[in-house]
Amino acid sequence: MDFQISNRIQTIVSMIDEFVEKELIPLEPEFLTRPFRDMLPVLREKQAMVKRMELWAPNFPKDCGGMGISLLEHGLVSEALGKSPLGHYVFWCQAPDAGNVEILHAHGTEEQKKRWLLPLVQGEIRSCFAMTEVDMPGSNPVMLETTAVKDGTDYVINGHKWYTSSADGAKFAITMAVTNPEAPKYQRASMIIVPTNTPGFNLVRNIPVMGHEGDDYFSHGEILFEGCRVPQENLLGVEGHGFVMAQERLGPGRIHHCMRWLGVCRRAFDLMCRRANTRVISPSGETLASRQIIQSWIAESAAELESARLLTLNSAWQIDNVGASAARDSISMIKFVVANTMGRIVDRALQVHGGLGMTDDTILAWFYRHERAARIYDGADEVHKTALAKRILKTYA
Amino acid sequence: MDFQISNRIQTIVSMIDEFVEKELIPLEPEFLTRPFRDMLPVLREKQAMVKRMELWAPNFPKDCGGMGISLLEHGLVSEALGKSPLGHYVFWCQAPDAGNVEILHAHGTEEQKKRWLLPLVQGEIRSCFAMTEVDMPGSNPVMLETTAVKDGTDYVINGHKWYTSSADGAKFAITMAVTNPEAPKYQRASMIIVPTNTPGFNLVRNIPVMGHEGDDYFSHGEILFEGCRVPQENLLGVEGHGFVMAQERLGPGRIHHCMRWLGVCRRAFDLMCRRANTRVISPSGETLASRQIIQSWIAESAAELESARLLTLNSAWQIDNVGASAARDSISMIKFVVANTMGRIVDRALQVHGGLGMTDDTILAWFYRHERAARIYDGADEVHKTALAKRILKTYA
Amino acid sequence: MDFQISNRIQTIVSMIDEFVEKELIPLEPEFLTRPFRDMLPVLREKQAMVKRMELWAPNFPKDCGGMGISLLEHGLVSEALGKSPLGHYVFWCQAPDAGNVEILHAHGTEEQKKRWLLPLVQGEIRSCFAMTEVDMPGSNPVMLETTAVKDGTDYVINGHKWYTSSADGAKFAITMAVTNPEAPKYQRASMIIVPTNTPGFNLVRNIPVMGHEGDDYFSHGEILFEGCRVPQENLLGVEGHGFVMAQERLGPGRIHHCMRWLGVCRRAFDLMCRRANTRVISPSGETLASRQIIQSWIAESAAELESARLLTLNSAWQIDNVGASAARDSISMIKFVVANTMGRIVDRALQVHGGLGMTDDTILAWFYRHERAARIYDGADEVHKTALAKRILKTYA
Amino acid sequence: MDFQISNRIQTIVSMIDEFVEKELIPLEPEFLTRPFRDMLPVLREKQAMVKRMELWAPNFPKDCGGMGISLLEHGLVSEALGKSPLGHYVFWCQAPDAGNVEILHAHGTEEQKKRWLLPLVQGEIRSCFAMTEVDMPGSNPVMLETTAVKDGTDYVINGHKWYTSSADGAKFAITMAVTNPEAPKYQRASMIIVPTNTPGFNLVRNIPVMGHEGDDYFSHGEILFEGCRVPQENLLGVEGHGFVMAQERLGPGRIHHCMRWLGVCRRAFDLMCRRANTRVISPSGETLASRQIIQSWIAESAAELESARLLTLNSAWQIDNVGASAARDSISMIKFVVANTMGRIVDRALQVHGGLGMTDDTILAWFYRHERAARIYDGADEVHKTALAKRILKTYA
Repeated sequence: MDFQISNRIQTIVSMIDEFVEKELIPLEPEFLTRPFRDMLPVLREKQAMVKRMELWAPNFPKDCGGMGISLLEHGLVSEALGKSPLGHYVFWCQAPDAGNVEILHAHGTEEQKKRWLLPLVQGEIRSCFAMTEVDMPGSNPVMLETTAVKDGTDYVINGHKWYTSSADGAKFAITMAVTNPEAPKYQRASMIIVPTNTPGFNLVRNIPVMGHEGDDYFSHGEILFEGCRVPQENLLGVEGHGFVMAQERLGPGRIHHCMRWLGVCRRAFDLMCRRANTRVISPSGETLASRQIIQSWIAESAAELESARLLTLNSAWQIDNVGASAARDSISMIKFVVANTMGRIVDRALQVHGGLGMTDDTILAWFYRHERAARIYDGADEVHKTALAKRILKTYA
Repeated sequence: MDFQISNRIQTIVSMIDEFVEKELIPLEPEFLTRPFRDMLPVLREKQAMVKRMELWAPNFPKDCGGMGISLLEHGLVSEALGKSPLGHYVFWCQAPDAGNVEILHAHGTEEQKKRWLLPLVQGEIRSCFAMTEVDMPGSNPVMLETTAVKDGTDYVINGHKWYTSSADGAKFAITMAVTNPEAPKYQRASMIIVPTNTPGFNLVRNIPVMGHEGDDYFSHGEILFEGCRVPQENLLGVEGHGFVMAQERLGPGRIHHCMRWLGVCRRAFDLMCRRANTRVISPSGETLASRQIIQSWIAESAAELESARLLTLNSAWQIDNVGASAARDSISMIKFVVANTMGRIVDRALQVHGGLGMTDDTILAWFYRHERAARIYDGADEVHKTALAKRILKTYA
Repeated sequence: MDFQISNRIQTIVSMIDEFVEKELIPLEPEFLTRPFRDMLPVLREKQAMVKRMELWAPNFPKDCGGMGISLLEHGLVSEALGKSPLGHYVFWCQAPDAGNVEILHAHGTEEQKKRWLLPLVQGEIRSCFAMTEVDMPGSNPVMLETTAVKDGTDYVINGHKWYTSSADGAKFAITMAVTNPEAPKYQRASMIIVPTNTPGFNLVRNIPVMGHEGDDYFSHGEILFEGCRVPQENLLGVEGHGFVMAQERLGPGRIHHCMRWLGVCRRAFDLMCRRANTRVISPSGETLASRQIIQSWIAESAAELESARLLTLNSAWQIDNVGASAARDSISMIKFVVANTMGRIVDRALQVHGGLGMTDDTILAWFYRHERAARIYDGADEVHKTALAKRILKTYA
Repeated sequence: MDFQISNRIQTIVSMIDEFVEKELIPLEPEFLTRPFRDMLPVLREKQAMVKRMELWAPNFPKDCGGMGISLLEHGLVSEALGKSPLGHYVFWCQAPDAGNVEILHAHGTEEQKKRWLLPLVQGEIRSCFAMTEVDMPGSNPVMLETTAVKDGTDYVINGHKWYTSSADGAKFAITMAVTNPEAPKYQRASMIIVPTNTPGFNLVRNIPVMGHEGDDYFSHGEILFEGCRVPQENLLGVEGHGFVMAQERLGPGRIHHCMRWLGVCRRAFDLMCRRANTRVISPSGETLASRQIIQSWIAESAAELESARLLTLNSAWQIDNVGASAARDSISMIKFVVANTMGRIVDRALQVHGGLGMTDDTILAWFYRHERAARIYDGADEVHKTALAKRILKTYA
C-alpha cells in the first residue's frame, strides 16, 4: 500500500484550488441571487480559461477530447472542484453529462458519437438523463411505466418522468423506456436518445426544490412524453439492455457524486475553521475557536472527512484496478457514508456561523438545503444499507 | 401529578385542529410560491373567522383583548397551531408580537398601552424587536453598540441591527440601545419604542435567508438607525433595565418557540406516517410502512415527540405555578431538546418522502430549511447547554 | 394537567433518599466484591429497618401486606431506590417477585395465596419466573418447547429454560409450559407453580454474565425440567391462559424496570457531577467542570433524564387511570427510551471518571456492564420499536 | 496511491487468521473462566508454534530478534491478531512490552539492551510501564508526584502509581519519576528501569476492573514506591528527557492499540453476521438477517470498520514514511475514531446476540466491558479531540 499522491496530480489539484478560489468563489454571490442563465456568459469565459490551462473535461476519455485521468485521480480533482457549486460545471465534468458521456462512449454507434458525444465533451451542448418516474421508486426496474413502442422505423414514446436534472437547456435526453414489456423484468427497458426539440417531448416545469425552480443547468425537470417519435437508430446499445447499462452508469455515477461531496465537506470545513478563529464572543477578544464544543466539532469533522476521503479514493482505486463490479460494496458504503458526512459537516459549519449561517451571505445555506438530496438520489441511504448488508450476509452463509 | 387535560382545552384544540386542517393547510401551496403580502387579504378573512370563533389572541391577557389562557394551556394550543406556518399568525399569537405584548403589558405606561398595545392585540398593527446586532453575539449584553443619547426631550438613536424579524410592515420596533454607557454592564441598555416611520429608522434590506428575502411578516430585517429621534416618553419601563426586561421576555419567549415547534413535529410526523402508508415500493403493493428502518424512525420520532411535549408542558406548568425564574433550567432544556427533536423528525419525514421531500409539493422542505434556525436564535444549543450545566454543577458544589 | 407531587410521596421519597445514602450505598463495596449470599444477614437487618419505617413492599397490595401506593407514586419511589442495586431488594419490591406477586394476587386461588403469596410479600421466601428458553425468542409464543403433560392429578413438566433470574435460592418458580399443544397458538401455554425442591426441577447452573455467575438473588439460572411432577392444583388461573397472563404481567413489569433505571440514571448523574466538580486537571486547580465538553454531557444528561422521567411517570399515570392496555404505546416507548437514556448517562459518567470509572471503586462499572441488559430483556429495543410503529401506522390507515 | 497489499503480507495474514481460528479462539472459554496464570503453560506451547512458523515478534526490530515488518504491515497483522484477546500475547507484540522494546531499542545502553531488551524480545520475561498516578491526569506532565532522588550512585524512588498494566509477573518496570524538579516543566522527569524485585517496589494490588482483579499479564497494578533504590545506570536515555521519550513512545503506542482494536471490530462483526444468519426468530424459519434494522447495523458497521481501517493504515504509512511527528494529527484522529467504532460494533454485535450476548458464552461481553477503556487510556477521546482541533485551527490562523 502506498498513500503517496503523484506530483502530476498534486500540481493539477493546486492549480484547481487556486482557480476555484480566485475565479469561481467570487461568482457565488451572483450565483445565489440571480438566474443561472444570466451567468452563462461569464461562465463561458471561465471555461475558456480552463481550456487554455488544459484542464478541460478531466475525466472524459482522451479519444473524445478529455484528459483521461483515472477515477482515483478524478477523486482528488473532484474534491478540489466541489468546493464551489460552479466547479464541476466550469471544468466540464458535471452530472448528468459525465454519465451520459460514459454511456455514449461505451455503447454509442459511430454516428451517435459524432452527433452527440463529441459536442457534449466539447461543452457545446448539454444533456439530461430521463429515468425516474413520478410515484415510482427508481430503484425498482419493474416499476417503470414509460413505454417506447415501435412504429415503422420509429419509437413512439409515452410516459411521465420527473427529477430529470438539467433538462432545461439540454439538447438531448437519454431516456429509459420499456421496449420489451413481455421480457424478463430486468430486460424490458432500453435507453433511447431523444432530442429535446422533438415534438411530444414536453418539459412541463422545473420542479420547485427547496423554494426555487432553478433554471438551465441547475434545475430538475418534469417531462411529459406524449407520442414522442424518434428514429429507432436512436436506440443506445442493445434493445432490452437499458437496466444493465443503467447499472453500469450508476455505480461510477455514485462515486462521482461522492467525490464532489468531499469538496463540499472541505469548503464547509474551511469556513467553519475560519469563522471559529475570527468570531469574537467576549469583550476580551476570545473567539469561538477557544470553546471546547466547537473544537470537538472540528476534530470530529476532520476525522470524518479524512475517513470519507480515504474510503472514496479506495473505492475509485478498486474501480480503476479491479472493476466496478468488484467495487460494488465499496460504492454502496461511500454513497451513504459521504452523503451523511457532508450533512454533518455542513450542519456544524452552519451552526458555527450562527444567524449568518442561515443567510445567503455564505454558501453554507445553499449547501445545507440543496445537498440534502444526497441522501436520497441514486439510491437512498436505506436502499444502499440493506443491499450492502444482504451481500455481506451472503458471504457468511 | 395528573396528566389529564381539561375538557375546555381539549375542545379548543379540536377546533383549532379542524381549522388548521380545513382553512390553513390548503393555503400553503400559495404560501410557498408567492410573496406573503399577496396573501394578506385571505389571511385577514381567516383571522375574522378566528375572532368569530372567539379563539383570537389565545395567550394574550384578557384585560387587553386576549383569551388569557395559561401558559400550559397555550402549549397545547400552540402545538395545534404550529402544524402550519400560518397558524400562529392567523390566531394572532405569533412572535415577535407575543413577546412585545408581554413587555408592553408589564412595563408600558397607560399612554403606551393605549397607543401600541391595544391595536397590537387587536391585530390592527404589527411590531418588531430590534436587539441583535451584526457581528455581536446577542447573548452578551456588554457587546451592544447601538446607542440612544438624550438630546432635549428626545433620544437620538444610532446603530446597526439585523435579524429584526418581521420589521418589514411593522408599525413600531421595541429597540434595545445603550442609554447608560457608564453603568454596570447589565444596566447599560434600555428598551425604547421606535415607530418605523421615524426619520432615521432605515430598513436597509430583508436579509436573504435560505435563498429568499421573504417579505412582510415572514422576513428578517437589517436596520440602520441614523440619528433616529424619538421622544423620551417612548422609553419602556426604567432606563437601564433593558436587559432585565429582555431576560423576562426571552424566558417565556423561548417556551413559545418550543410550543410552536411541537406543532411542526406533529405535522412532519403525520406526513411521514401517511407517506409510509401510501408509498408503494414493490409491484406486489408493499409500502414503505412495511420496512423496519422506517418503522424504527416512526417509533423513535413518536417517543422523542412525546418526550419533548411533556418536557415543554412541564416547563410551562412551572412558569405558571412557580415562576419563570424557577423554570430557568427547564427552559434551557426545552430550548435545545425541542429544537433538535424537530430537526430529527423533519429530517426523517423528508427522507421518507424521497425526492418529493426536496420539492415544494409538501411543507417539509420549508420546515427543513427555515426551522433550522431553531438551534440558533434565542441562544444557540451550545449556549443553553453550558449555561444549564454550570447552574447544575453549582448545586453539587 | 398538574405536575405537583403530593406531600406524602415527597416525604416518603426523602426518607428513602436518606436511607439509600446512609444504609445502602455504604454496603456497595462489599456487594461488588463478595458473594451476595454473604450479605444476606446484613440485608435482613436493613429490611427490618424498612419494616419499622413502614415502607415495606411499597407497591404491593394492602390486602396482602404491602403499602398499596399507585404506580405513579411507585415511579417516584423506585427512582429513589434504584440509585443503589440494593434498593429494591431491601424495600422488597424487586423483580421478578414483584411480577409474581401481581400474578398470584390476580389469579391465585385462596390456597395458593396463603401458601405462596403471603410469605412472598412478607419477604420470607423468594420466587422466580421460568419463561425464556434457550434459542427461542421469548417474544414469540408459538416457539415455546417446554411441555406440561397431565398424568393422573399431576402435570409432568419437561423442558429447558434459561435466564430464569434469581432462581438460585427461590422457593418456587412460576413456570410457563405448553399444556394445550393443539389449541390456537396464543392459547397453548399455562402458568404453573413449581416448588424448586420438586424432583426433576434442576438448576443446572447460574449463567455466567459479564464475567460473573452471581449467586442467590443476583443470578440468572439455567433450569432443566426433567419429568418434574407437580399437582394440577398448582395451575395458575385458567389452563391455556398463560400468554394472556404473561402479557398482563409484562406491561407493568416493563414499567417497573424503567422506574428503577431512572434511579440508576440519577445515581450516575450525581457521580458525574461530583467528579466533574472535584477532579483537578491543571496545576492551577481547574476541574473537569470547567470544560465545555463535560458541561454539554451534563446538560444533555439532565435533559434526557428529565424527559425519561416524565415519559415514565406519564405512562404510570395512564396505567393507573386508563389501564395497561391503553398505555401500551407509552410502555413500548419508555422501554427503549429509558434503557438507552440510562446507557448514555452511565457511559458519560464512566468517561468523566476516566480510569477510575473502569474500576470497582465506584458503582459505575457495575451499572455499565450489568444494566447493558436493559436494552435486551422484556423485549429488545428493536422489538418494541417495530411493534410501536405498526400500531401507530394503523391509526393513519 | 496504491491500495494493493503485498503478497508476502497477505500470506502472513492468512497464516495468522488460521492460527487464531484454530489455536487461540478455542482457548477463549478457558480464558474467560480461569486465572490467566493457569493458562501460561498452554500459551507457551502456542508461542513455540509461532516461533516455528517464524512469525514471532513481528514488529520488533530484526537486530534484536523480531521480524522487523513496517508499521503499515503490522497494522494488517495486528488486525488479524486482535480478533482474540490472546493474539498479541501469543505472537509477542503486546502492550506494554511493545512500547518498552521501542524505548530500550532507541535509548538503552548496550548493557541495558543485553540485560533487558534481548530476553524481553525473546519472550523470556515481561515488563511494565509505570507512569500514571492516582488522581493525577496522566496527560499533564507537571502533575507528576513520583520522585527519584540521587543518593550516592543510586536513585531513591518514592511515589504512588496505578494502572500499571501487567505489573503482576513483570520483571522490570520502566518508571517515570521527577529527577529534576527545578527544570522547565517538560524536562523534569526521567525514565528509570526498576527491577520488580527491588526492595521498595511494592505491587499493592491488582486493581479490580469491571468486576475482576485479573492476574499476571491481564492485570492493572497499583504500585507503591517506598524508598526504592536502583543504580543510576538504570536511567534510560538522558536525565530529564522522560516526557520527550514518553511522547515518542505514546504516538506509535496509540496506533498499536488502534490496530489491535481493528481486530476486535472484525471479530465482533463476524460474530454479528453469523448470529444474524443463524438466529431463527419465527416458526417459518426467518432469521435475524432478514430484518432491516439488523441489516442497517451490519452495513453501518462494515462502513465504519473499513473507514477506521483505512484511516489507521494511512496513519501507519505516514509514520513509516514521514515520521511520527508529521503523523500527529492522524494519530489523534484514529485514537478516538477507532475506539468509538469498536465501541459501536461490539455494542451492536452484543445486541444481535440478545441475552446470549450478556453471557460469557461468547467473547463479546468481555470485549464490551474491558475494551470500554479504549476511550480513556492513552488520552481520552476529549483530550485528543481538543488537541487535534487546536492544531488544525492554528493552520487557519
